Amino acid sequence: KKTYNIAVIPGDGIGKEITPEAQAVLEKATEGVAEFNYTDFDLGAERYLSDGTILPDEDLELIKKQDAILLGAVGDPRVKAGILERGLLLKLRFALDQYINLRPSKLYKGVTSPLANPGDIDFVVVREGTEGLYCGAGGAVRRNTPNEVATEVSINTWFGAERVARYAFQLAMKRKKHVTLVHKKNVLTNAGDMWQRVVDKVAQEFPEVEHDYLHVDAATIFIVTDPSRFDVILTDNLFGDILTDEAGAVVGGVGYSASGNINASNEYPSMFEPIHGSAPDIAGKGIANPTAAILSTAMLLRHLGFDEQAERIDAAVQADILEKGSTQRTTHEVGQDILARL
Amino acid sequence: KKTYNIAVIPGDGIGKEITPEAQAVLEKATEGVAEFNYTDFDLGAERYLSDGTILPDEDLELIKKQDAILLGAVGDPRVKAGILERGLLLKLRFALDQYINLRPSKLYKGVTSPLANPGDIDFVVVREGTEGLYCGAGGAVRRNTPNEVATEVSINTWFGAERVARYAFQLAMKRKKHVTLVHKKNVLTNAGDMWQRVVDKVAQEFPEVEHDYLHVDAATIFIVTDPSRFDVILTDNLFGDILTDEAGAVVGGVGYSASGNINASNEYPSMFEPIHGSAPDIAGKGIANPTAAILSTAMLLRHLGFDEQAERIDAAVQADILEKGSTQRTTHEVGQDILARL
Ligand SMILES: CC(C)[C@H](C(=O)O)[C@@H](O)C(=O)O
Ligand SMILES: CC(C)[C@H](C(=O)O)[C@@H](O)C(=O)O
Repeated sequence: KKTYNIAVIPGDGIGKEITPEAQAVLEKATEGVAEFNYTDFDLGAERYLSDGTILPDEDLELIKKQDAILLGAVGDPRVKAGILERGLLLKLRFALDQYINLRPSKLYKGVTSPLANPGDIDFVVVREGTEGLYCGAGGAVRRNTPNEVATEVSINTWFGAERVARYAFQLAMKRKKHVTLVHKKNVLTNAGDMWQRVVDKVAQEFPEVEHDYLHVDAATIFIVTDPSRFDVILTDNLFGDILTDEAGAVVGGVGYSASGNINASNEYPSMFEPIHGSAPDIAGKGIANPTAAILSTAMLLRHLGFDEQAERIDAAVQADILEKGSTQRTTHEVGQDILARL
Repeated sequence: KKTYNIAVIPGDGIGKEITPEAQAVLEKATEGVAEFNYTDFDLGAERYLSDGTILPDEDLELIKKQDAILLGAVGDPRVKAGILERGLLLKLRFALDQYINLRPSKLYKGVTSPLANPGDIDFVVVREGTEGLYCGAGGAVRRNTPNEVATEVSINTWFGAERVARYAFQLAMKRKKHVTLVHKKNVLTNAGDMWQRVVDKVAQEFPEVEHDYLHVDAATIFIVTDPSRFDVILTDNLFGDILTDEAGAVVGGVGYSASGNINASNEYPSMFEPIHGSAPDIAGKGIANPTAAILSTAMLLRHLGFDEQAERIDAAVQADILEKGSTQRTTHEVGQDILARL
C-alpha cells in the first residue's frame, strides 16, 4: 500500500464546496490500495483579497515536492483579470512544466447535449500547456493614449510541440488511433508550419495512427456539427483553451469536464482540476455539481497508475448520471450518491 | 441613376459557380436605380498554379480604384497553406485597410440548426480586420531542427481597436443596443487590457448602449448554449475568425453566412464575400448553394447606401429558404428562384 502526498488547492467559490466531495471519492476508490496525505494550500482570490498573497515561493517549493495536486477553482470578479491567472494558475502550470493539458470530452449517457443529434461524443484534447500565447511575452507602449500599441507574443518550440505530439500519438494508440492537429497554419505560418512538420515527423513513429489537420475555425464547426468524428485533438495552448470550452458545452456543460495539467516526465507533480470556474453566482449555496471535480480525481488516479480505480470512479459517475442526473441535488448529495456506488 | 465599378474575383472551385448568381441578383435588385460595371480579376489558386501569379501590383492598383469588390472563394488543397491567404486574401484586407470585418449570424426561418433549441439567433460579429495575430509578424530560427523556435506576434493599437469599437457601438444603436467585447484579457493582459479600456472609453459616447465582456472560451460556450443572448460581438481578428465559423455552424452552416471586409472611412473599396471556402469536394458539380454569395451582395448594397434594395434581397432569400430550402436544387436554380422573387 503506497502513500501519496497530495497538494489540495480548493480555491474560491464552488471550488471550496466540490473539493471535499472529490477527496472523499478519492479515498473511497483507493481503500486498501493507496493512502493519501493531503496538504491544504489556501490560495486564490479570497486569500489575495485578504492579504495580497498570490503564490508564495515557499508554497511553490512545497507543492513541487508533492505527488500530485488537486485544484478546485480559482477566481472572483473583484480581482482584476490576469492577476490570479498569470500569478497562480499559469504560474503553477509553467513552474511545474505541466506541458500536457489533457481534456477529455465525453457525452455521458443521460446527459442532455444542446445539440439536436450529438452522436457518440468521446474525444480527448491534448493541449500544449507551457508555450504559445500563454507564455506572457508582450508589452505595451504609450499606455492609455491614442498611440498605445500592445503586443502579445506566441513562442513555440520544436521541443515543446514534439513532446505533446508524441503524447497525443501514444494516447491515440490506446484509443481509436486518430490524431487531428488543429492550428491556423494558413495565417500563423511560422508556428503552424512548425507544428505540422513536428506532427508529420512524430507520426512516422506511429504508422498505425492516422492523422489529419484542421484549421481552428473549421474545428469549431465540426465540434458542433460532427463531434463524433474526433478521437484525439492535438493543439496549442490558446486553441486548446477555446476548443475545450466549446467541447464542454456540447457534452452538456463544463460541469462534466475534468482536466489534467500533466508533467509527463514526472519531474514535478501534475495538477487535476475541473475545467469550470469558481461560479460566484451559485457559490455558498451548496448546489454546485461536483461531478467534474470527481472526474478529475479519476484522472489523478490514472496518472498515478491506478487505472482500475479510475475506471470505477468513471463508471460510478456514469451510473449516477444515468439514474439521478436529472434530479435536483445538493453538492454533498451528489458526492454521497457517487460514493455509495464505489 | 449612379454607376459603380465593381471588382469581381470569383476565385476557385465553387467561387466561380456562385459568383454569377450573386451578380445576377445584384443587377435585378438595383434595376433602374444603379448600374454596375464589372471588372473581372482572375486571381486565386488556379491562376497561381498555372503561372505563379498571386496578386500583381497592377491588379491591386486597379482594384483600389473600384467602388467595391465581390469575392467568391479562394483556395485549393494543392497550394501550400498560407500562400494565397497571406498573398491574396489578407493582402487585400490589409492593403485596402478593411478594418471592419462584419459578419452577421442569423438563423433564417426554415433553416435547421444543429442545436436542439437554437432560439432566435440574430447577432453580428464586428471583427477587427487589420491587426492582431494576422499582421504577419513573427519568424523562426533553426527551422527543421530540434532547436527550432517559431513566434507569432499579435500587434494591437489603440487606433485600430477604437475605430472598430466605435463602429460596433454605432451598429448596436441601430440594433438591440448591446455590445459584448470578446477577448482573453485574463491571459493576454497587454492586448486584452487595452481593448477593455478602449471599449470603456468609446462606450461613454453611447450611453444608451449596454456593454459587457466575455472571455473567448466562455463565448464559444454561449454560442452553443444561448446564442440569442448576443446582439453585437466586438472582437479581435483571430477570435473573430473562430467565433464566426462556430456561429456559422449554429445558424445552419456557413452556406448562409456572408461577410463584409469594410473600409468604413471609404478611402479604399470594401470587399464582400461568403464566409465559406472554395469547397473543392463539390466544385464543378453546379450544386453549391449560392445563398451566402447572394447575401454578400445585400451587404455590398447596404454599404453603398442601397438599404431598401438590400432588404429586398434579404427578404427574397428568407422567402426562398422557407419555401424551397429543403429541396435539392442546382446552384443556378437557387439563383433563379431568388431572382424571381425580386
Ligand atoms: C483561467 C485561465 C487562465 C485558464 C486558461 O485559459 O487556460 C482556463 O480558461 C482554463 O481553460 O483552464
Ligand atoms: C482564409 C483565411 C485567411 C480567412 C481568415 O482567417 O480570416 C478565413 O478563415 C475567413 O474567416 O475569412
